[in-house]
Amino acid sequence: MTAAVEPPRHRFAVLDEEECLRLLPLLPVGRLGFSAGALPVVLPVNFTVVDRTVVFCTEPGLKLDAAAARAVACLEVDDYDVLSHSGWSVLATGRLEVVTDPDHEAVLRRLPVQPWAWQASRHYVELPIELLSGRKIGNP
Amino acid sequence: MTAAVEPPRHRFAVLDEEECLRLLPLLPVGRLGFSAGALPVVLPVNFTVVDRTVVFCTEPGLKLDAAAARAVACLEVDDYDVLSHSGWSVLATGRLEVVTDPDHEAVLRRLPVQPWAWQASRHYVELPIELLSGRKIGNP
Repeated sequence: MTAAVEPPRHRFAVLDEEECLRLLPLLPVGRLGFSAGALPVVLPVNFTVVDRTVVFCTEPGLKLDAAAARAVACLEVDDYDVLSHSGWSVLATGRLEVVTDPDHEAVLRRLPVQPWAWQASRHYVELPIELLSGRKIGNP
Repeated sequence: MTAAVEPPRHRFAVLDEEECLRLLPLLPVGRLGFSAGALPVVLPVNFTVVDRTVVFCTEPGLKLDAAAARAVACLEVDDYDVLSHSGWSVLATGRLEVVTDPDHEAVLRRLPVQPWAWQASRHYVELPIELLSGRKIGNP
């Protein structure tokens, strides 16, 4: 009987850039991938997207260190359905930048990108998207 | 009125190794972080955990290339609740290994780690966990 309820086996389909840009801001949490001390690190981050740029807030730590070093990083966002084995993922890659201009920071403070954690100091970081790719499986 | 429904601002708490090992297998999909062509890559993967080793199936592509090169990689798993701004994430880091021993592969084929995509060829990859860390926010 198990075979009868097994989801159909789909193939991956590549998403075009327009579809990637549409899907990317649909979820409030993505995962930031970068290197720290020569090791790969993936950490969840609450983000938004403005004009092909990912924006998030962070406190002192690995993410801010990477941004201060202008490290290359990627933001991954995905959504999936376990029952139907369908879903999608988008990967946006660029170079991190800490926002230091007070006028620009004042604009970003109005965005709906509130950090979930209490933060002694809050720093805005941008990731202008240079590479964008995505794929889907099934009919998510 | 907006302030009245804003979730409380929590602080992050570090998870100990026992808690990380308990949480890691709770979700069927994690995100594999590694480098490909000097760029950070994060891709979703359907996985399971056996004896401190992450196991997944993959077809030819970036993940299998990284495994064939015995690249250092990390698997990130998280769960969160948008309304209460609570959640947790676990990061398991190690070196990828393609399983080539037929007897070992026969054992892995019995695990509940079915790839969601149709795959012309299926390769089992292991990530023995060498570093394990996690944190939570709120009361997830």
